[in-house]
Amino acid sequence: MTDDAAEKPRTLVGERVPVRIGLVGCGVVGTGILQLLRDNRRAIEARLGAPIEVVAIAVRDASKARDEIVPSELVTEDALSIATHPDVDVVVEVMGGIEVAGAVVKKALEEGKHVVTANKALLAEEGDALLELAEARRVDLYFEAAVAGGIPILRVLREGLASDRIVALRGIVNGTSNYILSRMRDAGLGFATALGEAQEKGYAEADPTLDVNGGDATHKLAILATLAYGARVHPSQVHTEGIDRVSAVDMQFAERFGYVIKPLAVARPIGEGADGPRALDLRVHPALVPERSVLASIHGALNAVFVEGAMLGPCLMSGPGAGAEPTAMSVVSDIVDVGRNMLAGAHSRVPTRAFHGASLEEIPVQPIEAHRARYYLRFAVEDRAGVLARIAGVLGGFDVSIEQMVQTEDGDRKATLVMLTHEAKEGDLRMALEEIARLNYCQEPPAMLRLEDDA
Amino acid sequence: MTDDAAEKPRTLVGERVPVRIGLVGCGVVGTGILQLLRDNRRAIEARLGAPIEVVAIAVRDASKARDEIVPSELVTEDALSIATHPDVDVVVEVMGGIEVAGAVVKKALEEGKHVVTANKALLAEEGDALLELAEARRVDLYFEAAVAGGIPILRVLREGLASDRIVALRGIVNGTSNYILSRMRDAGLGFATALGEAQEKGYAEADPTLDVNGGDATHKLAILATLAYGARVHPSQVHTEGIDRVSAVDMQFAERFGYVIKPLAVARPIGEGADGPRALDLRVHPALVPERSVLASIHGALNAVFVEGAMLGPCLMSGPGAGAEPTAMSVVSDIVDVGRNMLAGAHSRVPTRAFHGASLEEIPVQPIEAHRARYYLRFAVEDRAGVLARIAGVLGGFDVSIEQMVQTEDGDRKATLVMLTHEAKEGDLRMALEEIARLNYCQEPPAMLRLEDDA
Repeated sequence: MTDDAAEKPRTLVGERVPVRIGLVGCGVVGTGILQLLRDNRRAIEARLGAPIEVVAIAVRDASKARDEIVPSELVTEDALSIATHPDVDVVVEVMGGIEVAGAVVKKALEEGKHVVTANKALLAEEGDALLELAEARRVDLYFEAAVAGGIPILRVLREGLASDRIVALRGIVNGTSNYILSRMRDAGLGFATALGEAQEKGYAEADPTLDVNGGDATHKLAILATLAYGARVHPSQVHTEGIDRVSAVDMQFAERFGYVIKPLAVARPIGEGADGPRALDLRVHPALVPERSVLASIHGALNAVFVEGAMLGPCLMSGPGAGAEPTAMSVVSDIVDVGRNMLAGAHSRVPTRAFHGASLEEIPVQPIEAHRARYYLRFAVEDRAGVLARIAGVLGGFDVSIEQMVQTEDGDRKATLVMLTHEAKEGDLRMALEEIARLNYCQEPPAMLRLEDDA
Repeated sequence: MTDDAAEKPRTLVGERVPVRIGLVGCGVVGTGILQLLRDNRRAIEARLGAPIEVVAIAVRDASKARDEIVPSELVTEDALSIATHPDVDVVVEVMGGIEVAGAVVKKALEEGKHVVTANKALLAEEGDALLELAEARRVDLYFEAAVAGGIPILRVLREGLASDRIVALRGIVNGTSNYILSRMRDAGLGFATALGEAQEKGYAEADPTLDVNGGDATHKLAILATLAYGARVHPSQVHTEGIDRVSAVDMQFAERFGYVIKPLAVARPIGEGADGPRALDLRVHPALVPERSVLASIHGALNAVFVEGAMLGPCLMSGPGAGAEPTAMSVVSDIVDVGRNMLAGAHSRVPTRAFHGASLEEIPVQPIEAHRARYYLRFAVEDRAGVLARIAGVLGGFDVSIEQMVQTEDGDRKATLVMLTHEAKEGDLRMALEEIARLNYCQEPPAMLRLEDDA
């Protein structure tokens, strides 16, 4: 393909010719896409004004037995060939991973093809370069399925709230974590048992590391923060803690205080003004949210994103965060969007990062030590006189004051001290906890969780 | 303006010239729009890639004192002049009412101008003709603010779920009704007291008729059903009942059975197949929803729309349904959308009714008599032997069986019988209730409310 052709994506203005896609990856999501295109054909054509046609499918192993919906004559093992296929208008990447997927997406954009992907890891790691390439080539790069599965939150940030300033964004964007914490709360399971159950039910990957350690949520938060605040955000800038630090006993104490522990992803502007935020607060960690808050009511493997606009006020979206069918729905809705652009001769109509590239800013991220919140603390201590006074004394010395406290005697000269603090600066609290951990009647490192009272 | 010019809306491709709007109406929403354009100017320009400029403002009474944000030199009393104003690209109608507003919108579309409106009554009554005019002229007619205020539900139906078949839609789309029923439940208020409170707080209009009798929700449901199912729906096709039939005692009995009474708007396809639904179930009425359902948790004046997609599964959006700021946010986001189309040279990119005009269908509406549901019934009867048996006998004679029942003795030889039925056909139930109402120990007409168990 010549450079000239590559600069001009095919447009279909007025025509009723098909939007032709090349599918890269044909696992459960790819197969779901083929099923959806068959089952919803009529509704899709009535909305798009043209059919969607699959012209090529790349798989890792062409010899593998597949669902009969996969037309074997379209199958190839050469993923890169989809990116250069002369009949492909839109490359649909659902293979996952970074190396091969990244090469295919890059090549496709260079060839002037539009791309739809569900690959959050790729976008979080290499999104900036790929999105700039797409802007330069004036092709569309859409990725609704990468964040919160079937919930069209990226479209809402790009278009529905295009006139507002976002003043807070809090999400539950990893369904596996939410399932695990929900089961720990509802059924009193321990962390390992709940994780095993999530794996049995197919919510968690065989290797659940990125679900459990917060890595997956961090990828998604980086994308959400970019679209909400017009900032270049890399996952490494997000303070990330996994849910593996939550124990069943924390769940019970939280409930006693009127809270529920949820796996949150938070992006807030700090010092918001007419010129945009002075800094961003970006965090992924389990947090205590008030039991009457909307996020507390998001059960099981559901995802939700709560957005607060300066004008809009609070707005919540919830729905399935994963699964072949919701993901396929989201991918094909992106294909419809790209197809509508092709039919209208309008590429790059909406900046994929919500803000035009030239307007994107490098906004500093607030160090976690500067975060101010109330905290939940749990200390396993020797059961003897003076311990509480000593711990309270250390906390007070660092400007951390106790708002409420529960003490249980666990027998065998052991006791558990659990408290909620008043608002404190995390840097101060950390210094206090380090000092407390060194006290010889502290039997294990103190447990600390943040409260998110505005959730 | 010549016919030729009228056929070609101004495009701004590549330019960074302003999108110029004419504001028709400058009450609280109009003023909110001017404030938003001032306060969020930077974020809007960074997303749109061009500024939005107000070039004319029509008001009913130019002599009235106004907020200083309204530039008096732009003000006119001639609303129609905005529709023909040579510098106006987008006419923004926020005056309300049908006659004048309808004439302005029609004229603007004829002149080849784009229109953004928040006027649900106009759209529900004359939307078909206006939307067809817009399609024919290839201009945009957007109306996100007309339904569920700040919640971008129309965009989600048009774009986010463009690849799916909607299998159920249930909303709380009138904030005043939701506020009134919430207060009746939470504070035990009677209907009239709760309505008075809603008026004091500014939620209800001075004339709250359309809020209370379901008319406003019906306007919105007609629009939602059109976008969800590709059907032409007129408000007169929606079975509509107001919330004024709900008494505080119903609220208490509902709670006893594990339900909450909410003001619902429901649009469901019946007999969904590859060729679309065979009929539509369209209803606006107070209903009992399970207390653990998502819609039960939508408190106060909030709105919410629950959509279930064949592929997506359940998805909920909630947020402020009214108020100057959320409405202004929604209107200006529509202006940004139109502006993005102008900059991309892409009008009518997305069909405003989600489906292309030629694909819109006349889908029959199921008569309410054919509706099947469980029902809540309350009878005020004389307190004597045999009454329950007689009522149960009449119900049974019409194939309505009782699932559970509570009887209270109210003294003075009066009793209240409250029951939930098993699933029954509404036509049968109505005949049974007519017969029961004629029994001489029935002291007032029976109260009947529908259960919405899947809510």
